[in-house]
Amino acid sequence: MAFETTIEISFGDCDPAGIIFYPNYFRWFDAAFQAFLKTRELDQHSLRETLGTIGTGLIDVGASFRAPASFGDTMTLRITGIEWTDRTFRITYEGRIGERVIVEGFELRGVFVKDGDRLKAAPVAPLKDLVGDLAA
Amino acid sequence: MAFETTIEISFGDCDPAGIIFYPNYFRWFDAAFQAFLKTRELDQHSLRETLGTIGTGLIDVGASFRAPASFGDTMTLRITGIEWTDRTFRITYEGRIGERVIVEGFELRGVFVKDGDRLKAAPVAPLKDLVGDLAA
Amino acid sequence: MAFETTIEISFGDCDPAGIIFYPNYFRWFDAAFQAFLKTRELDQHSLRETLGTIGTGLIDVGASFRAPASFGDTMTLRITGIEWTDRTFRITYEGRIGERVIVEGFELRGVFVKDGDRLKAAPVAPLKDLVGDLAA
Amino acid sequence: MAFETTIEISFGDCDPAGIIFYPNYFRWFDAAFQAFLKTRELDQHSLRETLGTIGTGLIDVGASFRAPASFGDTMTLRITGIEWTDRTFRITYEGRIGERVIVEGFELRGVFVKDGDRLKAAPVAPLKDLVGDLAA
Repeated sequence: MAFETTIEISFGDCDPAGIIFYPNYFRWFDAAFQAFLKTRELDQHSLRETLGTIGTGLIDVGASFRAPASFGDTMTLRITGIEWTDRTFRITYEGRIGERVIVEGFELRGVFVKDGDRLKAAPVAPLKDLVGDLAA
Repeated sequence: MAFETTIEISFGDCDPAGIIFYPNYFRWFDAAFQAFLKTRELDQHSLRETLGTIGTGLIDVGASFRAPASFGDTMTLRITGIEWTDRTFRITYEGRIGERVIVEGFELRGVFVKDGDRLKAAPVAPLKDLVGDLAA
Repeated sequence: MAFETTIEISFGDCDPAGIIFYPNYFRWFDAAFQAFLKTRELDQHSLRETLGTIGTGLIDVGASFRAPASFGDTMTLRITGIEWTDRTFRITYEGRIGERVIVEGFELRGVFVKDGDRLKAAPVAPLKDLVGDLAA
Repeated sequence: MAFETTIEISFGDCDPAGIIFYPNYFRWFDAAFQAFLKTRELDQHSLRETLGTIGTGLIDVGASFRAPASFGDTMTLRITGIEWTDRTFRITYEGRIGERVIVEGFELRGVFVKDGDRLKAAPVAPLKDLVGDLAA
Protein backbone atom coordinates (compact mmCIF):
# COMPACT_ATOMS: atom_id res chain seq x y z
CA MET A 1 0.00 0.00 0.00
CA ALA A 2 1.32 3.36 -0.99
CA PHE A 3 0.87 6.41 1.23
CA GLU A 4 -2.15 8.53 0.40
CA THR A 5 -3.83 11.70 1.60
CA THR A 6 -7.17 13.28 0.84
CA ILE A 7 -7.55 16.89 -0.25
CA GLU A 8 -10.86 18.72 -0.36
CA ILE A 9 -10.49 21.18 -3.24
CA SER A 10 -11.72 24.50 -1.94
CA PHE A 11 -13.03 27.65 -3.62
CA GLY A 12 -9.83 29.52 -2.78
CA ASP A 13 -7.66 26.85 -4.44
CA CYS A 14 -9.24 27.71 -7.79
CA ASP A 15 -8.61 30.51 -10.25
CA PRO A 16 -11.00 32.68 -12.29
CA ALA A 17 -11.34 29.85 -14.83
CA GLY A 18 -12.88 27.87 -11.95
CA ILE A 19 -10.17 25.22 -11.88
CA ILE A 20 -7.29 24.52 -9.50
CA PHE A 21 -4.57 27.16 -9.70
CA TYR A 22 -1.72 24.82 -10.52
CA PRO A 23 0.98 25.86 -7.99
CA ASN A 24 -1.36 24.42 -5.36
CA TYR A 25 -0.61 20.92 -6.65
CA PHE A 26 3.02 21.37 -5.61
CA ARG A 27 1.92 22.67 -2.21
CA TRP A 28 -0.05 19.43 -1.83
CA PHE A 29 2.84 17.28 -3.09
CA ASP A 30 5.11 18.82 -0.48
CA ALA A 31 2.48 18.44 2.25
CA ALA A 32 2.00 14.78 1.27
CA PHE A 33 5.73 14.17 1.56
CA GLN A 34 5.86 15.84 4.98
CA ALA A 35 2.80 13.84 6.08
CA PHE A 36 4.48 10.67 4.84
CA LEU A 37 7.57 11.47 6.93
CA LYS A 38 5.27 11.94 9.91
CA THR A 39 4.06 8.33 9.53
CA ARG A 40 7.74 7.42 10.19
CA GLU A 41 7.82 9.84 13.13
CA LEU A 42 10.17 12.03 11.14
CA ASP A 43 9.99 15.73 10.38
CA GLN A 44 12.34 18.53 9.36
CA HIS A 45 13.32 19.07 13.01
CA SER A 46 14.18 15.45 13.72
CA LEU A 47 16.05 15.11 10.41
CA ARG A 48 18.16 18.09 11.35
CA GLU A 49 19.09 16.44 14.60
CA THR A 50 19.66 12.90 13.41
CA LEU A 51 21.15 13.60 9.97
CA GLY A 52 22.64 17.06 10.47
CA THR A 53 20.76 18.20 7.39
CA ILE A 54 19.25 21.62 6.88
CA GLY A 55 16.42 19.97 4.95
CA THR A 56 15.23 17.59 2.27
CA GLY A 57 15.43 20.28 -0.38
CA LEU A 58 14.26 20.22 -3.95
CA ILE A 59 16.47 19.74 -7.00
CA ASP A 60 13.94 19.22 -9.74
CA VAL A 61 10.14 18.98 -9.87
CA GLY A 62 7.46 18.45 -12.46
CA ALA A 63 3.79 17.77 -12.99
CA SER A 64 1.48 16.73 -15.81
CA PHE A 65 -2.13 17.77 -15.67
CA ARG A 66 -4.41 15.10 -17.11
CA ALA A 67 -7.81 16.65 -16.44
CA PRO A 68 -9.06 19.79 -14.71
CA ALA A 69 -10.55 19.75 -11.22
CA SER A 70 -12.61 22.27 -9.36
CA PHE A 71 -13.88 23.20 -5.90
CA GLY A 72 -16.09 20.62 -4.30
CA ASP A 73 -13.98 17.82 -5.76
CA THR A 74 -12.15 15.48 -3.40
CA MET A 75 -8.69 14.48 -4.56
CA THR A 76 -6.89 11.38 -3.38
CA LEU A 77 -3.16 12.06 -3.62
CA ARG A 78 -0.88 9.03 -3.50
CA ILE A 79 2.87 8.68 -3.25
CA THR A 80 3.35 5.97 -5.86
CA GLY A 81 7.08 5.44 -5.44
CA ILE A 82 10.39 6.60 -4.06
CA GLU A 83 13.55 5.94 -6.06
CA TRP A 84 16.85 6.34 -4.26
CA THR A 85 20.24 7.12 -5.83
CA ASP A 86 23.44 7.97 -3.93
CA ARG A 87 22.62 11.62 -3.37
CA THR A 88 19.01 12.07 -4.50
CA PHE A 89 15.61 10.53 -4.07
CA ARG A 90 12.68 10.88 -6.42
CA ILE A 91 9.13 10.81 -5.09
CA THR A 92 6.32 10.21 -7.56
CA TYR A 93 2.75 11.37 -7.00
CA GLU A 94 -0.61 10.62 -8.52
CA GLY A 95 -3.80 12.54 -7.82
CA ARG A 96 -7.22 11.11 -8.62
CA ILE A 97 -10.77 12.29 -8.36
CA GLY A 98 -12.77 9.13 -8.13
CA GLU A 99 -11.12 6.79 -10.65
CA ARG A 100 -9.89 9.57 -12.89
CA VAL A 101 -6.22 10.57 -12.74
CA ILE A 102 -5.99 14.35 -12.79
CA VAL A 103 -2.32 14.91 -12.03
CA GLU A 104 0.96 13.03 -12.03
CA GLY A 105 4.12 14.58 -10.69
CA PHE A 106 7.47 14.12 -9.03
CA GLU A 107 9.92 15.76 -6.69
CA LEU A 108 13.64 15.06 -6.91
CA ARG A 109 15.10 15.85 -3.50
CA GLY A 110 18.45 15.79 -1.79
CA VAL A 111 19.54 15.74 1.82
CA PHE A 112 21.29 19.08 2.03
CA VAL A 113 24.05 19.97 4.44
CA LYS A 114 26.06 23.14 4.81
CA ASP A 115 29.41 23.27 3.06
CA GLY A 116 30.84 26.64 4.05
CA ASP A 117 28.52 29.26 2.55
CA ARG A 118 26.98 26.81 0.11
CA LEU A 119 24.76 23.78 0.39
CA LYS A 120 25.67 20.35 -0.89
CA ALA A 121 23.76 17.11 -1.30
CA ALA A 122 24.88 14.49 1.23
CA PRO A 123 24.43 10.72 0.79
CA VAL A 124 20.77 9.75 1.21
CA ALA A 125 21.36 6.26 2.65
CA PRO A 126 20.80 7.35 6.28
CA LEU A 127 17.43 8.85 5.32
CA LYS A 128 16.54 5.77 3.32
CA ASP A 129 17.19 3.65 6.41
CA LEU A 130 14.94 5.87 8.52
CA VAL A 131 12.13 5.93 5.96
CA GLY A 132 12.19 2.23 5.16
CA ASP A 133 9.85 0.71 2.63
CA LEU A 134 7.11 2.93 1.17
CA ALA A 135 4.71 0.02 1.34
CA ALA A 136 5.36 -0.64 5.03
CA MET B 1 -22.59 20.75 17.73
CA ALA B 2 -20.75 23.38 15.75
CA PHE B 3 -19.14 22.57 12.41
CA GLU B 4 -15.47 21.67 12.62
CA THR B 5 -12.62 20.69 10.34
CA THR B 6 -9.14 19.36 10.97
CA ILE B 7 -6.03 20.93 9.49
CA GLU B 8 -2.63 19.27 9.53
CA ILE B 9 -0.17 22.15 9.73
CA SER B 10 2.46 21.47 7.12
CA PHE B 11 6.05 22.64 6.68
CA GLY B 12 5.05 24.88 3.78
CA ASP B 13 2.40 26.63 5.89
CA CYS B 14 5.14 28.01 8.14
CA ASP B 15 7.55 30.90 7.77
CA PRO B 16 11.27 31.24 8.57
CA ALA B 17 10.38 31.77 12.25
CA GLY B 18 9.00 28.21 12.10
CA ILE B 19 5.41 29.22 12.85
CA ILE B 20 2.29 29.47 10.70
CA PHE B 21 2.47 32.32 8.18
CA TYR B 22 -0.66 34.10 9.28
CA PRO B 23 -2.51 34.65 5.96
CA ASN B 24 -2.95 30.87 5.92
CA TYR B 25 -5.41 31.15 8.81
CA PHE B 26 -7.75 33.13 6.57
CA ARG B 27 -7.32 30.56 3.80
CA TRP B 28 -8.47 27.95 6.33
CA PHE B 29 -11.34 30.12 7.58
CA ASP B 30 -12.63 30.45 4.02
CA ALA B 31 -12.17 26.75 3.34
CA ALA B 32 -14.06 25.91 6.55
CA PHE B 33 -16.94 28.13 5.47
CA GLN B 34 -17.05 26.51 2.02
CA ALA B 35 -16.88 23.05 3.63
CA PHE B 36 -19.71 24.03 5.95
CA LEU B 37 -21.82 25.09 2.93
CA LYS B 38 -21.08 21.70 1.42
CA THR B 39 -22.69 20.00 4.43
CA ARG B 40 -25.86 21.85 3.33
CA GLU B 41 -25.26 20.73 -0.26
CA LEU B 42 -24.54 24.34 -1.15
CA ASP B 43 -21.60 25.83 -2.99
CA GLN B 44 -20.79 28.98 -4.93
CA HIS B 45 -22.29 27.46 -8.10
CA SER B 46 -25.60 26.51 -6.50
CA LEU B 47 -25.86 29.85 -4.68
CA ARG B 48 -25.44 31.61 -7.99
CA GLU B 49 -28.32 29.64 -9.43
CA THR B 50 -30.70 29.72 -6.51
CA LEU B 51 -29.97 33.20 -5.15
CA GLY B 52 -28.71 34.99 -8.25
CA THR B 53 -25.65 36.04 -6.26
CA ILE B 54 -22.16 36.37 -7.62
CA GLY B 55 -20.87 35.15 -4.28
CA THR B 56 -20.81 35.31 -0.50
CA GLY B 57 -18.14 37.99 -0.53
CA LEU B 58 -16.21 39.50 2.33
CA ILE B 59 -16.89 42.86 3.95
CA ASP B 60 -14.70 42.71 7.01
CA VAL B 61 -12.42 40.09 8.56
CA GLY B 62 -10.20 39.76 11.57
CA ALA B 63 -8.17 37.34 13.64
CA SER B 64 -6.47 37.25 17.02
CA PHE B 65 -3.52 34.98 17.49
CA ARG B 66 -3.43 33.51 20.99
CA ALA B 67 -0.44 31.20 20.69
CA PRO B 68 1.93 30.17 17.91
CA ALA B 69 1.64 26.85 16.10
CA SER B 70 4.05 24.98 13.90
CA PHE B 71 4.30 22.16 11.39
CA GLY B 72 3.34 18.78 12.74
CA ASP B 73 0.58 20.33 14.83
CA THR B 74 -3.02 19.34 14.12
CA MET B 75 -5.49 22.19 14.37
CA THR B 76 -9.20 21.72 14.97
CA LEU B 77 -10.99 24.67 13.39
CA ARG B 78 -14.58 25.25 14.50
CA ILE B 79 -17.28 27.56 13.28
CA THR B 80 -18.56 28.76 16.64
CA GLY B 81 -21.42 30.91 15.44
CA ILE B 82 -23.19 32.67 12.59
CA GLU B 83 -24.95 35.96 13.29
CA TRP B 84 -27.39 37.23 10.69
CA THR B 85 -28.42 40.83 10.08
CA ASP B 86 -30.50 42.09 7.16
CA ARG B 87 -27.67 42.28 4.67
CA THR B 88 -24.70 40.66 6.38
CA PHE B 89 -23.75 37.53 8.25
CA ARG B 90 -20.85 37.12 10.61
CA ILE B 91 -19.11 33.77 10.98
CA THR B 92 -16.89 33.23 14.00
CA TYR B 93 -14.03 30.74 14.11
CA GLU B 94 -11.90 29.18 16.77
CA GLY B 95 -8.80 27.09 16.15
CA ARG B 96 -7.36 24.81 18.79
CA ILE B 97 -4.38 22.52 19.07
CA GLY B 98 -5.41 20.02 21.66
CA GLU B 99 -7.19 22.09 24.32
CA ARG B 100 -5.26 25.25 23.60
CA VAL B 101 -6.93 28.01 21.60
CA ILE B 102 -4.43 29.37 19.09
CA VAL B 103 -6.63 31.59 16.94
CA GLU B 104 -10.02 33.29 17.04
CA GLY B 105 -11.39 35.08 14.04
CA PHE B 106 -14.39 36.19 12.07
CA GLU B 107 -15.61 36.88 8.57
CA LEU B 108 -18.38 39.38 7.90
CA ARG B 109 -19.93 38.42 4.58
CA GLY B 110 -22.68 39.63 2.31
CA VAL B 111 -24.66 38.04 -0.46
CA PHE B 112 -23.52 40.16 -3.38
CA VAL B 113 -25.48 40.79 -6.54
CA LYS B 114 -24.71 42.92 -9.56
CA ASP B 115 -26.12 46.42 -9.60
CA GLY B 116 -25.01 47.81 -12.94
CA ASP B 117 -21.21 47.99 -12.84
CA ARG B 118 -21.09 47.75 -9.08
CA LEU B 119 -21.89 45.08 -6.53
CA LYS B 120 -24.39 45.48 -3.74
CA ALA B 121 -25.29 43.42 -0.71
CA ALA B 122 -28.70 41.76 -1.08
CA PRO B 123 -30.88 40.57 1.83
CA VAL B 124 -29.39 37.45 3.42
CA ALA B 125 -32.67 35.86 4.52
CA PRO B 126 -32.82 33.44 1.54
CA LEU B 127 -29.33 32.18 2.36
CA LYS B 128 -30.20 31.90 6.04
CA ASP B 129 -33.13 29.68 5.11
CA LEU B 130 -30.92 27.44 2.99
CA VAL B 131 -28.21 27.17 5.65
CA GLY B 132 -30.52 26.58 8.57
CA ASP B 133 -29.23 26.12 12.08
CA LEU B 134 -25.47 25.84 12.57
CA ALA B 135 -26.01 23.17 15.17
CA ALA B 136 -28.16 21.01 12.87
CA MET C 1 5.39 60.61 2.75
CA ALA C 2 4.17 57.22 3.84
CA PHE C 3 5.78 54.02 2.58
CA GLU C 4 4.08 52.48 -0.44
CA THR C 5 4.44 49.49 -2.72
CA THR C 6 2.82 48.52 -5.98
CA ILE C 7 1.15 45.17 -6.56
CA GLU C 8 0.12 43.88 -9.97
CA ILE C 9 -2.96 41.77 -9.30
CA SER C 10 -2.43 38.53 -11.18
CA PHE C 11 -4.79 35.85 -12.46
CA GLY C 12 -3.64 33.44 -9.78
CA ASP C 13 -4.42 35.93 -7.01
CA CYS C 14 -8.10 35.72 -7.91
CA ASP C 15 -10.80 33.19 -7.15
CA PRO C 16 -13.58 31.67 -9.28
CA ALA C 17 -15.66 34.83 -8.74
CA GLY C 18 -12.87 36.63 -10.60
CA ILE C 19 -11.87 38.82 -7.66
CA ILE C 20 -8.92 38.78 -5.28
CA PHE C 21 -8.98 35.81 -2.93
CA TYR C 22 -8.89 37.78 0.30
CA PRO C 23 -6.08 36.04 2.25
CA ASN C 24 -3.75 37.48 -0.39
CA TYR C 25 -4.33 40.95 1.03
CA PHE C 26 -2.69 39.84 4.27
CA ARG C 27 0.19 38.33 2.34
CA TRP C 28 0.67 41.75 0.75
CA PHE C 29 0.32 43.58 4.09
CA ASP C 30 3.08 41.42 5.55
CA ALA C 31 5.27 41.84 2.46
CA ALA C 32 4.77 45.64 2.64
CA PHE C 33 5.86 45.63 6.29
CA GLN C 34 8.96 43.56 5.49
CA ALA C 35 9.74 45.84 2.53
CA PHE C 36 9.33 48.85 4.81
CA LEU C 37 11.83 47.34 7.27
CA LYS C 38 14.22 46.87 4.35
CA THR C 39 14.16 50.63 3.70
CA ARG C 40 15.63 50.91 7.24
CA GLU C 41 18.14 48.15 6.41
CA LEU C 42 16.32 45.90 8.84
CA ASP C 43 15.00 42.38 8.37
CA GLN C 44 14.05 39.40 10.51
CA HIS C 45 17.71 38.27 10.63
CA SER C 46 19.06 41.61 11.78
CA LEU C 47 16.27 42.06 14.32
CA ARG C 48 17.12 38.71 15.80
CA GLU C 49 20.72 39.79 16.23
CA THR C 50 20.20 43.33 17.46
CA LEU C 51 17.04 42.83 19.53
CA GLY C 52 17.30 39.17 20.47
CA THR C 53 13.78 38.69 19.15
CA ILE C 54 12.49 35.64 17.38
CA GLY C 55 10.34 37.90 15.23
CA THR C 56 7.86 40.75 14.92
CA GLY C 57 4.92 38.41 15.33
CA LEU C 58 1.24 39.08 14.96
CA ILE C 59 -1.22 39.60 17.81
CA ASP C 60 -4.28 40.82 15.99
CA VAL C 61 -5.10 41.65 12.36
CA GLY C 62 -8.04 42.87 10.37
CA ALA C 63 -9.15 44.16 7.01
CA SER C 64 -12.18 45.87 5.51
CA PHE C 65 -12.91 45.37 1.86
CA ARG C 66 -14.33 48.51 0.26
CA ALA C 67 -14.58 47.42 -3.35
CA PRO C 68 -13.60 44.32 -5.32
CA ALA C 69 -10.50 44.16 -7.50
CA SER C 70 -9.47 41.77 -10.21
CA PHE C 71 -6.50 40.62 -12.27
CA GLY C 72 -4.98 43.29 -14.43
CA ASP C 73 -5.56 45.89 -11.74
CA THR C 74 -2.57 47.63 -10.18
CA MET C 75 -2.89 48.24 -6.45
CA THR C 76 -0.94 50.87 -4.57
CA LEU C 77 -0.54 49.67 -1.00
CA ARG C 78 0.46 52.29 1.57
CA ILE C 79 1.48 52.04 5.19
CA THR C 80 -0.55 54.94 6.54
CA GLY C 81 0.64 54.86 10.12
CA ILE C 82 2.45 53.04 12.90
CA GLU C 83 1.22 53.46 16.47
CA TRP C 84 3.52 52.36 19.26
CA THR C 85 2.52 51.28 22.76
CA ASP C 86 4.84 49.72 25.37
CA ARG C 87 4.68 46.22 24.01
CA THR C 88 2.85 46.44 20.71
CA PHE C 89 2.84 48.41 17.49
CA ARG C 90 -0.05 48.78 15.10
CA ILE C 91 0.58 49.22 11.38
CA THR C 92 -2.28 50.53 9.25
CA TYR C 93 -2.59 49.88 5.54
CA GLU C 94 -4.60 51.29 2.68
CA GLY C 95 -4.80 49.81 -0.79
CA ARG C 96 -6.03 51.82 -3.77
CA ILE C 97 -6.64 51.15 -7.41
CA GLY C 98 -6.31 54.54 -8.99
CA GLU C 99 -8.08 56.88 -6.58
CA ARG C 100 -10.45 54.23 -5.26
CA VAL C 101 -9.77 52.70 -1.87
CA ILE C 102 -10.33 48.96 -2.09
CA VAL C 103 -8.97 47.77 1.24
CA GLU C 104 -8.05 49.12 4.65
CA GLY C 105 -6.38 46.96 7.25
CA PHE C 106 -4.05 46.71 10.20
CA GLU C 107 -1.58 44.44 11.87
CA LEU C 108 -0.97 44.60 15.62
CA ARG C 109 2.50 43.19 16.21
CA GLY C 110 4.80 42.54 19.11
CA VAL C 111 8.52 41.99 19.44
CA PHE C 112 8.54 38.43 20.67
CA VAL C 113 11.27 36.84 22.74
CA LYS C 114 11.55 33.38 24.23
CA ASP C 115 10.47 32.97 27.82
CA GLY C 116 11.19 29.33 28.57
CA ASP C 117 8.92 27.30 26.32
CA ARG C 118 6.61 30.21 25.63
CA LEU C 119 6.93 33.49 23.81
CA LYS C 120 6.36 36.87 25.37
CA ALA C 121 6.10 40.38 24.00
CA ALA C 122 9.13 42.49 24.89
CA PRO C 123 9.19 46.32 24.99
CA VAL C 124 9.06 47.76 21.48
CA ALA C 125 11.08 50.91 22.18
CA PRO C 126 14.33 49.50 20.75
CA LEU C 127 12.55 48.65 17.51
CA LYS C 128 10.90 52.05 17.42
CA ASP C 129 14.34 53.66 17.64
CA LEU C 130 15.63 51.54 14.76
CA VAL C 131 12.59 52.21 12.57
CA GLY C 132 12.38 55.93 13.22
CA ASP C 133 9.71 58.08 11.66
CA LEU C 134 7.43 56.50 9.07
CA ALA C 135 7.58 59.69 7.04
CA ALA C 136 11.39 59.77 6.97
CA MET D 1 15.12 41.46 -25.36
CA ALA D 2 13.14 38.86 -23.54
CA PHE D 3 10.35 39.81 -21.16
CA GLU D 4 11.39 40.12 -17.55
CA THR D 5 9.88 40.92 -14.17
CA THR D 6 11.36 41.62 -10.77
CA ILE D 7 10.28 39.80 -7.64
CA GLU D 8 11.21 40.91 -4.14
CA ILE D 9 11.46 37.69 -2.16
CA SER D 10 9.53 38.27 1.05
CA PHE D 11 9.61 36.65 4.48
CA GLY D 12 6.27 34.94 3.82
CA ASP D 13 7.55 33.36 0.61
CA CYS D 14 10.05 31.33 2.62
CA ASP D 15 9.72 28.18 4.68
CA PRO D 16 11.15 27.19 8.07
CA ALA D 17 14.46 26.35 6.38
CA GLY D 18 14.59 30.06 5.50
CA ILE D 19 14.49 29.51 1.74
CA ILE D 20 11.77 30.01 -0.86
CA PHE D 21 8.93 27.51 -0.50
CA TYR D 22 9.12 26.09 -3.99
CA PRO D 23 5.47 26.24 -5.16
CA ASN D 24 5.91 30.02 -5.11
CA TYR D 25 8.21 29.76 -8.14
CA PHE D 26 5.29 28.45 -10.16
CA ARG D 27 3.07 31.24 -8.86
CA TRP D 28 5.68 33.67 -10.17
CA PHE D 29 6.02 31.82 -13.51
CA ASP D 30 2.28 32.11 -14.05
CA ALA D 31 2.26 35.77 -13.00
CA ALA D 32 5.14 36.48 -15.41
CA PHE D 33 3.21 34.86 -18.25
CA GLN D 34 0.08 36.88 -17.43
CA ALA D 35 2.19 40.07 -17.18
CA PHE D 36 3.75 39.24 -20.54
CA LEU D 37 0.27 38.89 -22.08
CA LYS D 38 -0.55 42.30 -20.61
CA THR D 39 2.32 43.85 -22.62
CA ARG D 40 0.35 42.65 -25.70
CA GLU D 41 -2.86 44.08 -24.21
CA LEU D 42 -4.12 40.54 -23.76
CA ASP D 43 -5.55 38.85 -20.70
CA GLN D 44 -7.74 35.86 -19.89
CA HIS D 45 -10.87 37.97 -20.49
CA SER D 46 -9.83 39.21 -23.92
CA LEU D 47 -8.62 35.76 -24.98
CA ARG D 48 -12.00 34.36 -24.09
CA GLU D 49 -13.67 36.91 -26.31
CA THR D 50 -11.30 36.84 -29.27
CA LEU D 51 -10.38 33.15 -29.27
CA GLY D 52 -13.40 31.58 -27.60
CA THR D 53 -11.05 29.86 -25.18
CA ILE D 54 -11.75 29.16 -21.54
CA GLY D 55 -8.07 29.75 -20.82
CA THR D 56 -4.44 29.11 -21.61
CA GLY D 57 -4.33 26.09 -19.37
CA LEU D 58 -1.43 23.99 -18.27
CA ILE D 59 -0.49 20.58 -19.68
CA ASP D 60 2.94 20.02 -18.19
CA VAL D 61 5.27 22.07 -15.99
CA GLY D 62 8.67 21.70 -14.42
CA ALA D 63 11.42 23.51 -12.60
CA SER D 64 15.04 22.92 -11.65
CA PHE D 65 16.41 24.64 -8.60
CA ARG D 66 20.06 25.66 -9.07
CA ALA D 67 20.67 27.51 -5.83
CA PRO D 68 18.60 28.50 -2.82
CA ALA D 69 17.27 32.01 -2.31
CA SER D 70 15.89 33.75 0.71
CA PHE D 71 13.93 36.79 1.84
CA GLY D 72 15.57 40.09 1.05
CA ASP D 73 16.82 38.73 -2.28
CA THR D 74 15.59 40.34 -5.50
CA MET D 75 14.93 37.88 -8.31
CA THR D 76 14.87 38.83 -11.96
CA LEU D 77 12.56 36.40 -13.72
CA ARG D 78 12.85 36.23 -17.52
CA ILE D 79 10.79 34.51 -20.15
CA THR D 80 13.63 33.12 -22.25
CA GLY D 81 11.58 31.59 -25.05
CA ILE D 82 8.22 30.46 -26.36
CA GLU D 83 8.07 27.43 -28.63
CA TRP D 84 4.89 26.88 -30.58
CA THR D 85 3.55 23.57 -31.92
CA ASP D 86 0.11 23.00 -33.47
CA ARG D 87 -1.77 22.69 -30.21
CA THR D 88 0.70 23.63 -27.48
CA PHE D 89 3.17 26.33 -26.59
CA ARG D 90 6.09 26.00 -24.22
CA ILE D 91 7.28 28.97 -22.22
CA THR D 92 10.73 28.79 -20.63
CA TYR D 93 11.75 30.80 -17.58
CA GLU D 94 14.98 31.70 -15.89
CA GLY D 95 15.28 33.35 -12.49
CA ARG D 96 18.47 35.05 -11.36
CA ILE D 97 19.65 36.80 -8.27
CA GLY D 98 22.34 39.10 -9.50
CA GLU D 99 24.28 37.02 -12.04
CA ARG D 100 23.48 33.72 -10.40
CA VAL D 101 20.79 31.50 -11.94
CA ILE D 102 18.64 30.09 -9.15
CA VAL D 103 15.79 28.50 -11.10
CA GLU D 104 14.98 27.33 -14.61
CA GLY D 105 11.53 26.16 -15.52
CA PHE D 106 8.89 25.76 -18.16
CA GLU D 107 5.15 25.69 -18.68
CA LEU D 108 3.58 23.73 -21.53
CA ARG D 109 0.21 25.31 -22.23
CA GLY D 110 -2.70 24.82 -24.57
CA VAL D 111 -5.55 27.02 -25.70
CA PHE D 112 -8.46 25.13 -24.22
CA VAL D 113 -12.00 25.19 -25.53
CA LYS D 114 -15.09 23.35 -24.40
CA ASP D 115 -15.93 20.13 -26.19
CA GLY D 116 -19.18 19.01 -24.59
CA ASP D 117 -18.35 18.28 -20.95
CA ARG D 118 -14.65 18.02 -21.58
CA LEU D 119 -11.94 20.45 -22.58
CA LYS D 120 -9.77 20.07 -25.65
CA ALA D 121 -6.69 21.87 -26.90
CA ALA D 122 -7.45 24.06 -29.92
CA PRO D 123 -4.89 25.21 -32.52
CA VAL D 124 -2.60 27.85 -31.01
CA ALA D 125 -1.92 29.77 -34.24
CA PRO D 126 -4.47 32.52 -33.47
CA LEU D 127 -2.80 33.14 -30.09
CA LYS D 128 0.62 33.08 -31.68
CA ASP D 129 -0.51 35.82 -34.07
CA LEU D 130 -1.80 37.94 -31.19
CA VAL D 131 1.34 37.48 -29.10
CA GLY D 132 3.83 38.04 -31.89
CA ASP D 133 7.56 37.86 -31.33
CA LEU D 134 8.79 37.50 -27.73
CA ALA D 135 11.61 39.91 -28.50
CA ALA D 136 9.30 42.61 -29.83
